[in-house]
Amino acid sequence: MEKNRLEAFSDGVIAIIITIMVLELKVPHGSTLSELEPLLPVFLSYVLSFIYVGIYWNNHHHMLHTVRRVHGKILWANLHLLFWLSLFPFTTGWMGENHFTTMPTAVYGAVLFMAAIAYYILQRVIIAHEGTDSLLAKAVGKDWKGKLSPLLYLTAIALSFVNAWIADAIYVAVAILWFIPDRRIEQRFETQTPS
Amino acid sequence: MEKNRLEAFSDGVIAIIITIMVLELKVPHGSTLSELEPLLPVFLSYVLSFIYVGIYWNNHHHMLHTVRRVHGKILWANLHLLFWLSLFPFTTGWMGENHFTTMPTAVYGAVLFMAAIAYYILQRVIIAHEGTDSLLAKAVGKDWKGKLSPLLYLTAIALSFVNAWIADAIYVAVAILWFIPDRRIEQRFETQTPS
Amino acid sequence: MEKNRLEAFSDGVIAIIITIMVLELKVPHGSTLSELEPLLPVFLSYVLSFIYVGIYWNNHHHMLHTVRRVHGKILWANLHLLFWLSLFPFTTGWMGENHFTTMPTAVYGAVLFMAAIAYYILQRVIIAHEGTDSLLAKAVGKDWKGKLSPLLYLTAIALSFVNAWIADAIYVAVAILWFIPDRRIEQRFETQTPS
Amino acid sequence: MEKNRLEAFSDGVIAIIITIMVLELKVPHGSTLSELEPLLPVFLSYVLSFIYVGIYWNNHHHMLHTVRRVHGKILWANLHLLFWLSLFPFTTGWMGENHFTTMPTAVYGAVLFMAAIAYYILQRVIIAHEGTDSLLAKAVGKDWKGKLSPLLYLTAIALSFVNAWIADAIYVAVAILWFIPDRRIEQRFETQTPS
Repeated sequence: MEKNRLEAFSDGVIAIIITIMVLELKVPHGSTLSELEPLLPVFLSYVLSFIYVGIYWNNHHHMLHTVRRVHGKILWANLHLLFWLSLFPFTTGWMGENHFTTMPTAVYGAVLFMAAIAYYILQRVIIAHEGTDSLLAKAVGKDWKGKLSPLLYLTAIALSFVNAWIADAIYVAVAILWFIPDRRIEQRFETQTPS
Repeated sequence: MEKNRLEAFSDGVIAIIITIMVLELKVPHGSTLSELEPLLPVFLSYVLSFIYVGIYWNNHHHMLHTVRRVHGKILWANLHLLFWLSLFPFTTGWMGENHFTTMPTAVYGAVLFMAAIAYYILQRVIIAHEGTDSLLAKAVGKDWKGKLSPLLYLTAIALSFVNAWIADAIYVAVAILWFIPDRRIEQRFETQTPS
Repeated sequence: MEKNRLEAFSDGVIAIIITIMVLELKVPHGSTLSELEPLLPVFLSYVLSFIYVGIYWNNHHHMLHTVRRVHGKILWANLHLLFWLSLFPFTTGWMGENHFTTMPTAVYGAVLFMAAIAYYILQRVIIAHEGTDSLLAKAVGKDWKGKLSPLLYLTAIALSFVNAWIADAIYVAVAILWFIPDRRIEQRFETQTPS
Repeated sequence: MEKNRLEAFSDGVIAIIITIMVLELKVPHGSTLSELEPLLPVFLSYVLSFIYVGIYWNNHHHMLHTVRRVHGKILWANLHLLFWLSLFPFTTGWMGENHFTTMPTAVYGAVLFMAAIAYYILQRVIIAHEGTDSLLAKAVGKDWKGKLSPLLYLTAIALSFVNAWIADAIYVAVAILWFIPDRRIEQRFETQTPS
């Protein structure tokens, strides 16, 4: 019951974040196809961020599913995650409008990094509350991906000062990394969840 | 339970999409009726897109109603659909502000086409999971409308280079096409759903 | 169950409408109190529309509470209502920015009128479905307010061409009219609803 | 059931408020780090308001949890609270863009003050309805924080005319004040709520 509201609020915020990002795709005044050309990098950064927010929503969905009782620390750890996600539209727009140059790419990575840390904290807070033999603790396991991602983001931030495209490639790679294991974790849930 | 959250998130995104579209109706500075004249095409494109989003929401509502258990593929197929719907405000605004000229009309159709494909994929994913003798599989039947619509969109895109108004007429026709059968499918549900 | 989703979607759209209206209160660049002066009419029109949307949400809340089963006609009658409500931010901003001059005031009334008609249609569709001896039919009764309001809006639209402030006074009066009976209807529900 | 919808609507409005605030962080055109410098005060005011909205959401969450039955007065007291919260994006943006100068800081405090009063009214309305021996009445107790905060806001408003930074420090202090006791109240709930 209480959990429902935490999920509903998170869904609301994430739904708005994902939709606000599209507002950076400003409607051009002319009506030729060439008017869309300068929007291409903005569109690509939108696609990347849409996938990232989608991954966060999916994982958040699975993680919250295992929570039996919500308490204050979870509420705040969740708000902390939503805070960093709320900066995605800004960093996405900045990176897109500046055609993936160094500084916007690095700042994009920094917010990805902070969101990953916030997700990790939320996970720890839930496991601390639900117990180390809880469904989530088992499903997460050694969580090598949760630990690897922040390191990859840091690497990408450093490399963005060498060549921003390397950093962007790493962001895409991490997205693919998360896109796949999602299913494996889920199978675990399907095997173990009775309802 | 899990399904609730998928519905809530989709509702949130669709609700925001429908409301963000209206932001393209920029408040004019003067206060005479003539100030509203240039907004008329923007208003008309808003009405058309509002009806399309309404149709998607209604059909999505009925389709999800038949799902018994959500899994990863459904989540991603659903996000894929939401991605294309999230581009509606952009294409609606572009088409409206440029008074239904060729290229914006064609791009509007292209996004309609991709949304239709995404809806079709989501439907296939659900049927593959629920079984070919499921409620949805029966209700959808041969799905001639789901197959006809993308063809009509492609025709409209091609014809928009001849005369954009023909394409717009086709978009209106497809909307009418979907507006009506909705009730027929629903009756099927009403006959078959016990609850 | 199905009804939940209709309510959730309506809540989402209404929540966004109410919040988008506040975006017309554009942040001024200077930092003196006089910077806020030109925003006063925008603020007043926001307050009026906030109360109207609040009334619609409250009444919608009570009306949907009596619905036992949702079907296609209700979904579309509801979308029709949401369409007219979605124009509130535009008409509110236009009326506020032009300091309650004639045409914006008349157009504001026209959208209020259409929303009232849409609400009336939704009410009729629900009663037709639930039966004339349903809870809603009894609670609504002769619905003199639902019939009086559109007439008052039409009067206000006409009078706005004489003096816009008379029209604005009528809008305020109708808001007060609805603010009060809300409680009476509710008592009826409280007496009659077992749960 | 009815309560669900009140919560869902409030969640929607609060989720949008929190996300709309971030729109004041306008994407800069250049791509150097120095482009972000002028955004720093806007960012800081965003962080402060995010925490305030988070506190309101958390407390609202706990307070509504104790309500057994919703009625008209609660709906309107809740809308009244949402109204003042809806002004946060405006005052946050104004204060941030003007680098925490006197008048924007004072107006920011005035809206904080009104929101606190609105929250207090909502609390009173609920307790009046649920009874003085209700869970909420006991948990709230003497409510010295609910009574102290408005006084601190008034003090801050007055002092902002001496030095705006003093006022800002008080806003931060009140946020910390609320951040901590939240847990104490919650423990009370945990001890007393059976479910």
